[in-house]
Amino acid sequence: MTFEYSKRVPHNDNDVVGEILEAAANPAVISFAGGLPAPELFPVEGMKKAADTVFDNEGQTALQYSNAVGETVLREEIVKLMTDRGVDTSVEHVGVTTGSEQSIDLLAKMFVNPGDTVIVEEPTYLCTLDVFRSYGANIVGVEMDENGMRMDKFEEALKAHPEAKLVYTIPTFQNPTGRTMSVDRRKKFVELANKYDLLVMEDDPYGAIRYEGEELPPLKKFDTQDRVVYMSTFSKILAPGMRLGWIVCNVDVLSNFVVMKQSADLHSDNLSQHIIATFLKQNDVYEHIKKISDLYRHRFELMLDYIKKEFPADAKHSHPEGGMFIWIELPGEVDTMELFKTCVEHNVAFVPGDAFYPNKPKMGTFRLNFSNVDDETIEVGMKRLGTALKEALEATK
Amino acid sequence: MTFEYSKRVPHNDNDVVGEILEAAANPAVISFAGGLPAPELFPVEGMKKAADTVFDNEGQTALQYSNAVGETVLREEIVKLMTDRGVDTSVEHVGVTTGSEQSIDLLAKMFVNPGDTVIVEEPTYLCTLDVFRSYGANIVGVEMDENGMRMDKFEEALKAHPEAKLVYTIPTFQNPTGRTMSVDRRKKFVELANKYDLLVMEDDPYGAIRYEGEELPPLKKFDTQDRVVYMSTFSKILAPGMRLGWIVCNVDVLSNFVVMKQSADLHSDNLSQHIIATFLKQNDVYEHIKKISDLYRHRFELMLDYIKKEFPADAKHSHPEGGMFIWIELPGEVDTMELFKTCVEHNVAFVPGDAFYPNKPKMGTFRLNFSNVDDETIEVGMKRLGTALKEALEATK
Repeated sequence: MTFEYSKRVPHNDNDVVGEILEAAANPAVISFAGGLPAPELFPVEGMKKAADTVFDNEGQTALQYSNAVGETVLREEIVKLMTDRGVDTSVEHVGVTTGSEQSIDLLAKMFVNPGDTVIVEEPTYLCTLDVFRSYGANIVGVEMDENGMRMDKFEEALKAHPEAKLVYTIPTFQNPTGRTMSVDRRKKFVELANKYDLLVMEDDPYGAIRYEGEELPPLKKFDTQDRVVYMSTFSKILAPGMRLGWIVCNVDVLSNFVVMKQSADLHSDNLSQHIIATFLKQNDVYEHIKKISDLYRHRFELMLDYIKKEFPADAKHSHPEGGMFIWIELPGEVDTMELFKTCVEHNVAFVPGDAFYPNKPKMGTFRLNFSNVDDETIEVGMKRLGTALKEALEATK
Repeated sequence: MTFEYSKRVPHNDNDVVGEILEAAANPAVISFAGGLPAPELFPVEGMKKAADTVFDNEGQTALQYSNAVGETVLREEIVKLMTDRGVDTSVEHVGVTTGSEQSIDLLAKMFVNPGDTVIVEEPTYLCTLDVFRSYGANIVGVEMDENGMRMDKFEEALKAHPEAKLVYTIPTFQNPTGRTMSVDRRKKFVELANKYDLLVMEDDPYGAIRYEGEELPPLKKFDTQDRVVYMSTFSKILAPGMRLGWIVCNVDVLSNFVVMKQSADLHSDNLSQHIIATFLKQNDVYEHIKKISDLYRHRFELMLDYIKKEFPADAKHSHPEGGMFIWIELPGEVDTMELFKTCVEHNVAFVPGDAFYPNKPKMGTFRLNFSNVDDETIEVGMKRLGTALKEALEATK
């Protein structure tokens, strides 16, 4: 039969991500394209012990149906994590999800009617753009600099789009740039959200993985009007395979979120919820996070060394203080997809910047990941990349 | 702030399910309203052993990100289960989901544009109705009898609605009726789907739990045009808390399904996928299913005895050969929600039939669950129910 898909199914005539994945799958290619945590740091033994405890003490409960908002034992642990992040909250504001992707999808589904205007940083997380597009959003990008979203440009966008309904931001160690919004801008951001009556989706998957500088409070801390929906995940601090994240928000928003979640998957994996709650009770999660930060700092610094040594001198790079990504901007008018092809010919890959722009992409930009590559891979890959970049820039002269 | 939700958020002015949950939560009330498997049969020890094996042999893999279509080790086990159910298939037709709720939601999302006509059995699974409604479907119900959906009524509906695009059915031990579609009707059903070019969503969560009669092949077995999307789940044969189900379908449908799933939650819980795949290798799942069937047969027969002894003589009941539910139809014009209130006053609850009808409900109908209630609960609860029903019927005379 011929299948008639709904309008919600995307037509990928120009499948950038597919091309990248295909290139990165070639074993000869060193890929800095991924966004995966370092698996050698997954707390396998700790999770095994936690799982055994769950099976021994509450096996039947963990294997039975649960409720859409999430298991109370886990929500209590999340409240503690939030307190440590400087946000005062309580269990009735916390909902468990199967990770940030689901948080983003369900929030977009529950707030975005076709044609609604949403504001994002430019560039931003590509899957969020896909989700907003799937619900028919009109996406407006706001320029960033090294201190995150520019507040003058944000207000300009709000004046030009008084109909704007929500703003999505990754304030800390942003994907793809690794940049962090300064404290002053965080305060200003919430002020503007109040003034223009915006719902705020604050996505904070990386914030806990800091290896330099001082911790900054989430936007949620400055939220006096309950308009910030804070999202985070266990994917980067424990294990992404277990697919668990959370949101912290207004209780009315949460109760509607729960209705949407029930219709999407009834509830999140209950066994994994109990295992992670038990792991958090049995272990000092910050000891574990320190191991992650230490390794990522090392890999980041190594990659930075090679950027300085091997890249064309006028290539700009972000200087993240945490997270998993470095952002590169090349001088001049470089066609990023052509550049990508040249690099793949040199057996090295990244994510071309184009994928992260809601509208017109900035030329000659790309994202490098350093969390899931060992020293030798960084060394060999970055040398290849340096050679390929110089060759490509030479060709444009 | 005032939150402006999208049109997709349901407005529950008449929250039948909420009322039921509230009534059933009172500890004095014996509830036959649930749809939960018996937790005392969850294979806790077997899952613990499987989990230990996973942590010991492939811990890092199980805790890392995976792919949206599902882990190959699990898809291979699903192919074996499908072969046992009489369906010849292969890994490239199998996708893993977080359970049937997600299968239904994503399929509806990818096939139903607002205003599209979909056909369902009447009554049918209430969450499916909610999902279809959330995507703006026009839902047409087709009458059933003890042998499942009536084929004369199905063809009538297809003639009246030539625009109909898909049909959703639970052919075996249907929710809420417990009824099973006969083999002749299964063949006729696929014939009509071919003739009227319908996509078929075959939902089969209960089919493996048979305690009487002979096994029947799924509709998928008779599908020569690859138009049946078969859905099943581990929730009823292993453990619902682990949130894993699957679909078997045409490869083009699967590749689009995977795009939708990626946007919804990236992929299903990877740890649970590895644990269940390992459990299936380490154990004879049919030995386990036999234990479930034996217990459910016993509870079904006990409940049936009390229906015969305690219910008004002219109350009709379905006679399921498997699954978890009995369907009751009372004579005359009984207001089901009033009846429900009377029963709750007698400290016993069920799901009123109204919730399962896409349009006008049949009066005086309700669903009883027997899988998660022990003998004493059945005895006490069914006596209360008998008394309440007689009182309610008396009042309508």
